Amino acid sequence: MPGPVSLYLAGPEVFLPNAREVGAAKKAICAEHGFLGRFPLDGTDGTNGDSGPVTDGHAIFRSCIDMMQDCDVIVANMTPFRGPSMDVGTAVEIGLMFALGRPVFGYTNVVGDYSTRVTADGWQVEDFGFADNLMCEGPVFESGGSIVRTGVADVERLTDLTGFEACVRAAARTLGLET
Amino acid sequence: MPGPVSLYLAGPEVFLPNAREVGAAKKAICAEHGFLGRFPLDGTDGTNGDSGPVTDGHAIFRSCIDMMQDCDVIVANMTPFRGPSMDVGTAVEIGLMFALGRPVFGYTNVVGDYSTRVTADGWQVEDFGFADNLMCEGPVFESGGSIVRTGVADVERLTDLTGFEACVRAAARTLGLET
Repeated sequence: MPGPVSLYLAGPEVFLPNAREVGAAKKAICAEHGFLGRFPLDGTDGTNGDSGPVTDGHAIFRSCIDMMQDCDVIVANMTPFRGPSMDVGTAVEIGLMFALGRPVFGYTNVVGDYSTRVTADGWQVEDFGFADNLMCEGPVFESGGSIVRTGVADVERLTDLTGFEACVRAAARTLGLET
Repeated sequence: MPGPVSLYLAGPEVFLPNAREVGAAKKAICAEHGFLGRFPLDGTDGTNGDSGPVTDGHAIFRSCIDMMQDCDVIVANMTPFRGPSMDVGTAVEIGLMFALGRPVFGYTNVVGDYSTRVTADGWQVEDFGFADNLMCEGPVFESGGSIVRTGVADVERLTDLTGFEACVRAAARTLGLET
């Protein structure tokens, strides 16, 4: 019998002061829909004794890569973070999982298109009706995943899990874990 | 005899009004160092007749993916773009090329660490001495690439090619095209 379907929980909430709590909440939602949720911080405690901070960064990176290679699907928090676009670390993870052939699902707690959040200043602004840069959303569409956009109060933008749960549910349906 | 070493030119300059001109300048620098530079826009003219904008976005995405799969190495412009972090589309491309086993090189025209550009607001700010989120820089280090940081005038931040050329030179040395 195959093991449970592992779902990589990508998103900037690893930077929240209560990151592990948020990770636990996400994993509980995953379990309700038939997934084994894996939260990036599960693989590391963020320190490795007396070596310097750069070394820790490399260790965290390696731990995340190992975890992703071990996961069957990714659900990425694509909510704008520190600017008009999603978290860049999460973007790297989307590219990596897409290249590994995994289905990519995403959610954002901002409803508007990317083009509504950017002023051009002479630069071209992508206006494809996407939530973000086309390279972020392309992997979702091409891998058979989907994107959930949910409007939430500003103060809940990076913590509300309504869209996340809808996204996990969509992934469960797509992968045949739920009907 | 093997063909030339193809180098994927990743970066937000595809959004510049004179994007193709910048692409040509980057390709000329690549040629000086033994690389065949490939610029994302070479694969598409950004339109496909009378279909809507979303369709164009998908076509551009597919064209970029095909081009990357055809390239041996990536040089990514990691200069902060529309916020404290690099362009998210370029970040996706870094993750993808890393997963494909290609060496990842990067450059940024801002010298300071990521932590100097962000205010915490209760969120943890990575302080590993990296130029950006550790997921962006990890692929560079693990793939045997390197990052070049160059300080330039603000107005030249997204167009100055001094750091780009240094990065291409580093890639040429690492891949044995130059000594």
